[in-house]
Amino acid sequence: MFIIAITGMPGAGKTTAAKHLVETGLQKIAMGDMIREETKRRNLHPDDQNMGAIMRELREKYGAGAIAELCLRSMASMKTDTIVVDGVRSMAEVEIFRRSGSVKLLTIRASPRRRFELLRARGRTDDPQTIESFNVRDERELSIGIGGAIALADDIVSNERTSVEELGASSLSVVRRWMSDVER
Amino acid sequence: MFIIAITGMPGAGKTTAAKHLVETGLQKIAMGDMIREETKRRNLHPDDQNMGAIMRELREKYGAGAIAELCLRSMASMKTDTIVVDGVRSMAEVEIFRRSGSVKLLTIRASPRRRFELLRARGRTDDPQTIESFNVRDERELSIGIGGAIALADDIVSNERTSVEELGASSLSVVRRWMSDVER
Repeated sequence: MFIIAITGMPGAGKTTAAKHLVETGLQKIAMGDMIREETKRRNLHPDDQNMGAIMRELREKYGAGAIAELCLRSMASMKTDTIVVDGVRSMAEVEIFRRSGSVKLLTIRASPRRRFELLRARGRTDDPQTIESFNVRDERELSIGIGGAIALADDIVSNERTSVEELGASSLSVVRRWMSDVER
Repeated sequence: MFIIAITGMPGAGKTTAAKHLVETGLQKIAMGDMIREETKRRNLHPDDQNMGAIMRELREKYGAGAIAELCLRSMASMKTDTIVVDGVRSMAEVEIFRRSGSVKLLTIRASPRRRFELLRARGRTDDPQTIESFNVRDERELSIGIGGAIALADDIVSNERTSVEELGASSLSVVRRWMSDVER
């Protein structure tokens, strides 16, 4: 299987990029959904605090690759050669995915200032509304190793001064290049 | 003082970008030079192992911001409003620089594959010549928090499919935008 893993800090535009890839016919799995579903399964409100607690618990119980393992289980039932994984948070997760195929890692990035604006506009249940909670969430992501994944990615798309359409087009351009390399 | 701090993994092109900025008249200080000079001062060969040991020692003795403190001391004698700092390795260092002025953080980035090619071609005394020593060096940089600096940078320039001239021009374009924001 060819796995296109997407990483990036909260609010950088990962899900928007992944959505555009899905619109071109690719299948997708979202790592955040694994945590969101587990949170709901326990009758907890899927806000930032609860989802953070569940993520830490799963990682403590099953190791740094716990969420990636959940993804692999879901992926096993999907009939596809190529899959987009939205929301990779560490190289430990990338290593888990490498057991199931060839992995390319794409960073979607924006400055903290831009991400804060985008998150406030998005207003998902787990999105920070104050700069303090934004910083806490950044710190949590960095503490599980997202900086390493961002630093070691195979390519990057900047969402700094970008429309949704441009972000999608740039991401697709990177992915198409990778897919043609794989086919060759 | 306005400090343009440049971060990025080994071989990404930080020094090339900084050199281009210097050619436009900006002053520069290189964090690696602080370590290289200290290594030579102790009559040690400035290779990767010795420089890594000195860096760790300075950080253990004087804290995560040790090299940034050395830079600030050198900068105090430089008569300039704006300075480029090449080779920032953590947000702890950025915080030290913030005590002396306004800081903007620029990441220069390339994929591991591309950086390994660039480093082998460069062949500085501390550059890795095997993939194993390349990975060890990446790990060392990540362990001191360079992933956090890369993730939280204000802007990024990609050096993936770029000529030296393009890397310089893109970096200058980001810096010019920042400088006009500061002047306003």
